[in-house]
Amino acid sequence: MRAICAPQAPERGAAVPPFPTIPALHAAYAGGHDPRATVAAVYRRLAAIDDPGIFITLVPEAEALAAAAALGAFDPAGRPLWGVPFAVKDNVDVAGLPTTAACPDFAYMPSETAPAVARLLAAGAILIGKTNLDQFATGLVGLRTPHPAPRNAIDPAIVPGGSSSGSAVAVAHGIVSFAVGTDTAGSGRVPAGLNNVVGLKPSLGAVSSRGMLPACRTLDTLSVFAGTVADADAAFRVMADYDPADPWSRALPVASAPAGLPPGLRLGVPDTNSRRFGGDILSEAAFDATLADLEGLAGLTEPVDLAPMFATAALLYDGPWVAERYAAIRAVMETRPDILHPITRAVIASAERHGAADAFAGLYRLAELRRATDRVWDRVDVIAVPTYPRPRTCADLEADPIGPNSELGTYTNFVNLLDWCALAVPGRFRSDGLPAGITLLAPRGGDGLLAVLGARLQAAAAPGIGAGTTPVPAAEAAPARARPDEIELAVVGAHLSGLPLNRELTERGARFIRAAETGGDYRLYALSGGPPQRPGLLRVAAGTGAAIEAEVWALPAAGFGAFVAGIPAPLGIGTLVLADGTRPKGFLVEAAGIDGAADITRFGGWRRYLAARAAA
Amino acid sequence: MRAICAPQAPERGAAVPPFPTIPALHAAYAGGHDPRATVAAVYRRLAAIDDPGIFITLVPEAEALAAAAALGAFDPAGRPLWGVPFAVKDNVDVAGLPTTAACPDFAYMPSETAPAVARLLAAGAILIGKTNLDQFATGLVGLRTPHPAPRNAIDPAIVPGGSSSGSAVAVAHGIVSFAVGTDTAGSGRVPAGLNNVVGLKPSLGAVSSRGMLPACRTLDTLSVFAGTVADADAAFRVMADYDPADPWSRALPVASAPAGLPPGLRLGVPDTNSRRFGGDILSEAAFDATLADLEGLAGLTEPVDLAPMFATAALLYDGPWVAERYAAIRAVMETRPDILHPITRAVIASAERHGAADAFAGLYRLAELRRATDRVWDRVDVIAVPTYPRPRTCADLEADPIGPNSELGTYTNFVNLLDWCALAVPGRFRSDGLPAGITLLAPRGGDGLLAVLGARLQAAAAPGIGAGTTPVPAAEAAPARARPDEIELAVVGAHLSGLPLNRELTERGARFIRAAETGGDYRLYALSGGPPQRPGLLRVAAGTGAAIEAEVWALPAAGFGAFVAGIPAPLGIGTLVLADGTRPKGFLVEAAGIDGAADITRFGGWRRYLAARAAA
Repeated sequence: MRAICAPQAPERGAAVPPFPTIPALHAAYAGGHDPRATVAAVYRRLAAIDDPGIFITLVPEAEALAAAAALGAFDPAGRPLWGVPFAVKDNVDVAGLPTTAACPDFAYMPSETAPAVARLLAAGAILIGKTNLDQFATGLVGLRTPHPAPRNAIDPAIVPGGSSSGSAVAVAHGIVSFAVGTDTAGSGRVPAGLNNVVGLKPSLGAVSSRGMLPACRTLDTLSVFAGTVADADAAFRVMADYDPADPWSRALPVASAPAGLPPGLRLGVPDTNSRRFGGDILSEAAFDATLADLEGLAGLTEPVDLAPMFATAALLYDGPWVAERYAAIRAVMETRPDILHPITRAVIASAERHGAADAFAGLYRLAELRRATDRVWDRVDVIAVPTYPRPRTCADLEADPIGPNSELGTYTNFVNLLDWCALAVPGRFRSDGLPAGITLLAPRGGDGLLAVLGARLQAAAAPGIGAGTTPVPAAEAAPARARPDEIELAVVGAHLSGLPLNRELTERGARFIRAAETGGDYRLYALSGGPPQRPGLLRVAAGTGAAIEAEVWALPAAGFGAFVAGIPAPLGIGTLVLADGTRPKGFLVEAAGIDGAADITRFGGWRRYLAARAAA
Repeated sequence: MRAICAPQAPERGAAVPPFPTIPALHAAYAGGHDPRATVAAVYRRLAAIDDPGIFITLVPEAEALAAAAALGAFDPAGRPLWGVPFAVKDNVDVAGLPTTAACPDFAYMPSETAPAVARLLAAGAILIGKTNLDQFATGLVGLRTPHPAPRNAIDPAIVPGGSSSGSAVAVAHGIVSFAVGTDTAGSGRVPAGLNNVVGLKPSLGAVSSRGMLPACRTLDTLSVFAGTVADADAAFRVMADYDPADPWSRALPVASAPAGLPPGLRLGVPDTNSRRFGGDILSEAAFDATLADLEGLAGLTEPVDLAPMFATAALLYDGPWVAERYAAIRAVMETRPDILHPITRAVIASAERHGAADAFAGLYRLAELRRATDRVWDRVDVIAVPTYPRPRTCADLEADPIGPNSELGTYTNFVNLLDWCALAVPGRFRSDGLPAGITLLAPRGGDGLLAVLGARLQAAAAPGIGAGTTPVPAAEAAPARARPDEIELAVVGAHLSGLPLNRELTERGARFIRAAETGGDYRLYALSGGPPQRPGLLRVAAGTGAAIEAEVWALPAAGFGAFVAGIPAPLGIGTLVLADGTRPKGFLVEAAGIDGAADITRFGGWRRYLAARAAA
């Protein structure tokens, strides 16, 4: 029953079609390309790759073509994944396809599609099939499957990584644009790194976990593999939704559009004692090269001691969490253990030595470690770590199926336990052509920040997408946006930069985001009173106003309340409509408050009014 | 080793000095009374009560007198517990006094005082001693102790209740003004009810649990016993503080002063199928009598099905949480089980049958039940339940040490598991003179609301404090203004109490301040959109508006920013002019936003508009 990498593989560097990123597909669709042609290309590419280990269940081509045909008119605004082929790891339910978790004798036919997958389908994505995995998502190597294991897309001598092996490899070959994986301890990141694709591990609870066969329910999340960070983020934002029927779902501020990269971003990197590469200098050199690119994007780099994170990771192996895996397939373990892969069975059977008191003791220790580790976020905004210490070969795993597997999780195992989010980003390759990869970490809710930083990093560091030669598109200049812990505020008067009340913003830690102007339905008044003299901005009936100069600032949410409380009548805070389509909070005046005020709309803004008055 | 109630007891109705409430003591101190005289009275009263079961360790009178003398000048503003005698349950550390948990062979001498107790001492409270308990806080009867059990202060034939037996009885006799207890599954409430005193069970994490010997660490909290709700709340607010060194500590908005009682409060009461009194019609009648008082304070009474709460409680007995108790004293269980009370040992030993997978399965089930039960808070603000089904006698417990103990926890066991707070309030007595009691429940963070409601209820229903005849003082009228760290917000629409968005305020720790109406220059509009439908308040030219019904709430400043940020156009926050001359922040609508909205000024307020529409 032991599966090990097949030796055959396509020649590297062979001409392959360009990677089907979502923007590339959508540009083609906008030009009249038929999504059925995309589907046909998927199956052609799959045949050319000729790796029987990637999919456990393939959607028949005719069905995928029919799904493409049924999409109707190209509608990227309403269905942001219109015509985008994707795959789903085979421990996540899709109605009508068996869920096997790579354990054929365990297979069942789900009647419902996992809500997160249903959201992808509703957004126009086209399902190609269910992908192979380390059985019951227990493993980081991709070899613990009774099926042929997927071949690593970069070099078949190294393991594909797991447990989401098939999802990562399918994306690396550009067979699909993105794939759903799962991540409990690194299953969404290690195979991404080993196949030079993006692995997005959301904050726990951001994506409904209903319809996912649990590994460790307290640590599980669905994850996303994609060719680019932007594509992974796009799929994630479709999947993310609060699900009241999922007890692990949480309402998190993660579904916001990618934020701008905050100036002065504080980057944490492993300190000298926290660097673990298993003695592999090629991996270490590649990590440092990618880190140099990353440091160029950050405002400040700070060494971080990972000792408490490694202590947390140790809990996962030495502690009781393996009992969650036991609980998930208890009936199998107790009545049909023979249907399991022998290594999977041995790993999960170790749960039997833990009593309930051990489980609680583990939870106590974790609570302490969370408290201790969370202090790091006072000093840094993001931590960059290697995705894994070094790539391991199939031969290594044949010799020792446990040790190298554990080593691969060095930088991933602690993340879910600590309730952080993570983004595995392709970085610079090792000098021998093997992938190294880097992973960005942030506290829960920091998914948006990771996406912005990761996109810039991938564009700067990664030579191409997956196993192919498609270059990584430049990270789009995202509109500068506030972070989740900030509130955007549009100012139009004495709070503009350089004017007397601007200090009220900067003293509260506010930062300038962008210059802007309002939509065309506002009038500006010079109110009586002061100093300082203040204007009042009033929204008026359509066609009776003008656009007014504004600036958008981001205020820390904690200071915003006191700021609002200090605003004198007739001014207040409402929602402004800006010309760029955004709708930040902003200053407004009560209509009853402009009695006797001068209408200065014709100046187009407070600053120009002041200048004109000074010149007069 | 089995302890059972001693038969002797002081005669009921004998003349006893008035109960030492904090306001009574402070009034005396303001008049020149010496706190040493208070201390001397404590020891005199203790001698008169002559119950050797209350204290395990008593502070020598001379030391308590010295502490009183060392207080310095009367300083109630700086030290709100100046000169107030109190006791601490003997599973909470006080430096220099042994912690025994009612297991003499387990005793240790702590070097540090539990931070919450240290805060009480710093606030001027005078420690009298460490109180008896069900050993290791495992029990609800107060009899599972190798010492003489404390006698119930109302009737020695019934159990004192536990596990915080000594703390409850000490307060019931007025020996101390308040006492620290602990509560994991009812230990801070059951003995309060059985002794006609207040039992305040804080939201988990509001009070540091450092220095408390754990029972179930995920469910434990320190608690407060006092003669009046106001006193319990005063002690609680001194104890409450975020403790970064305690992994279970949480920053909660609970330390605010008692808020006013919101009009339109929605009260949940057990529905017909959820009433469990063990067939005791006297307890049922007493509960209903108190409930009638309570319903007079609420705006709306709604039956609640407690089935999912009882299912949660069942987890505690049938599930793996007993393993937390095992984990807490593992070394004892594994090496010196003979030092334990036989019933305690038997109860905790049952943990050995639970494996780690059972523990996680229990946590999963709890997560589901939390999600299911939390929906009740969409319908009601507070739930009132009996504190226990019926009082049980010492003889009952001699016959069966387990069954009656479990029954006493019927209405308490689920509360900590569900992360709710609770307040056991003395209510009307049974017709045979035994205490019945009632407990108010609210979701996490609702401690302030419970205190306000509980104070009014106790004043309305309870005939006297504890075992004495001191009448319950009338609930003080709460201050009608926000504190410096709060922001007053006037609401006029769906945020009014009892309306759908009010929860956005209460979830942020807001408290009701006062009913109000605006000045006369406003018009009210019913905006299109929703649900929920929302009104818009517009200030208009003098003489063209009317006064509109409003409520003023106080929001913690920290939460105000996020609240403002979430307000959708055309609504915003400006400054309102109220009829009482105050000018709080409040909801306003943009003049441009009332296009097409109905002018409903003539109704005088949103609530009356809704009522008229519903009647139409």
